[in-house]
Amino acid sequence: MGKARRPDTPFWVDRAEVAGDLLRLDAEESHHLLHVHRAPIGAPFQAVDGEGTLYECTLESLDRRSAVGRVLERRAEVGELKRPIHLLVGLPDWGSVEQLVGLAVPLGVRALDFVRCGRSEGRAPGNQRLVRLTRIARAGVKQSRRTRLPELRFSGSLGEALGPTPHGTRIVADPEGKTWGPETGDNIQLAVILAVGPPGGFTEGEARLLSGEGFLPISLGPNRLLTETAALCLLSIARNHLL
Amino acid sequence: MGKARRPDTPFWVDRAEVAGDLLRLDAEESHHLLHVHRAPIGAPFQAVDGEGTLYECTLESLDRRSAVGRVLERRAEVGELKRPIHLLVGLPDWGSVEQLVGLAVPLGVRALDFVRCGRSEGRAPGNQRLVRLTRIARAGVKQSRRTRLPELRFSGSLGEALGPTPHGTRIVADPEGKTWGPETGDNIQLAVILAVGPPGGFTEGEARLLSGEGFLPISLGPNRLLTETAALCLLSIARNHLL
Repeated sequence: MGKARRPDTPFWVDRAEVAGDLLRLDAEESHHLLHVHRAPIGAPFQAVDGEGTLYECTLESLDRRSAVGRVLERRAEVGELKRPIHLLVGLPDWGSVEQLVGLAVPLGVRALDFVRCGRSEGRAPGNQRLVRLTRIARAGVKQSRRTRLPELRFSGSLGEALGPTPHGTRIVADPEGKTWGPETGDNIQLAVILAVGPPGGFTEGEARLLSGEGFLPISLGPNRLLTETAALCLLSIARNHLL
Repeated sequence: MGKARRPDTPFWVDRAEVAGDLLRLDAEESHHLLHVHRAPIGAPFQAVDGEGTLYECTLESLDRRSAVGRVLERRAEVGELKRPIHLLVGLPDWGSVEQLVGLAVPLGVRALDFVRCGRSEGRAPGNQRLVRLTRIARAGVKQSRRTRLPELRFSGSLGEALGPTPHGTRIVADPEGKTWGPETGDNIQLAVILAVGPPGGFTEGEARLLSGEGFLPISLGPNRLLTETAALCLLSIARNHLL
């Protein structure tokens, strides 16, 4: 009997389904492990809980249609950056929201707030869209082999968005700013909070609010970038300082 | 009579349609200027030729359904980076190709080669797909207000792709590499050539070829990135050194 090969991508497990040295996958993940990967009893697999833990497991048993795993090892903060990045993005259209979640989650964002700004045209999503967005985020966590599911928020205003942001280095994408030099990211002690305007940009009032809250304006280059492209660019640069 | 407001986004003009101080937009661009923006004779607009020139114009006349502009000023290399970035990407699936073109063109890439690598599963595109891809690239140039249309290539192998790359700083995304530090981009004198493997990564032979050609391995972080995400991340970091 050949030794079962461990699937390359971890499986999702809710923290509530981890009890002592056993964990239970939900029906969808179980199906994937048992029927797509055809894992036999004893086969190795990994699970991730979205709260910072990767579990090295072997398939212990089947409980009805659920796969039960025995936890051999817990590994904390696998695939995570040294410090958290919070990204505030002026709410763009829905296609851009989904694209940005799909790309920003693997790039390590810890919290992503689509903020209804003065010039935002999009609207806060209904429940179906939120469910779909959470699925995209969860798939990004698994596929990219990180361990924390980013928090997704839809704040109603910039003031509301700034409330829960942590202390840390604050940067706003602004064509009038300086470029991001080595000194910009070198003293990140706590967290990075990045802000990118909606299509059409922040209003004057919003720009004043950001300035008053200590956001440093940083230029991303000599040409115009869409909201989602600017957000990805800024996130990639910040991420590189937190490896 | 109010003064006509200049449209925010430049119009595309083929270099062959610029003669002395006059230029002629094609039917589609003319329609957009005349019927969407309702530009009257004398109205200001900008045109871009994809070869590095932005033209400041006024609408001179209509020749059948073509808008003819008078060139008031030519501006070279508007919206371009200080040095060119060439990006070699192991050919992914077609959706990823289109997504990457849509995002990499505004981020300033000068040449983008989707290379058929040993582990590539995608195939070189047919003519319809190439036409569509060129439209995406052209829209990206206009929307982002840069002036050079990047060259899009589909090399049949990594060796073929390396042939036409210029001299310059050579970097390959590699989880085993060092992180991109300030020194990595500080001595970019000529050009940057970035390489990112296809889904599944470069083969050993391809990795040896890149190493032999002087590509420096750079890690993009502690977790796994899809081909297109890694390419965007690396491009964003390199771009930031060329502002």
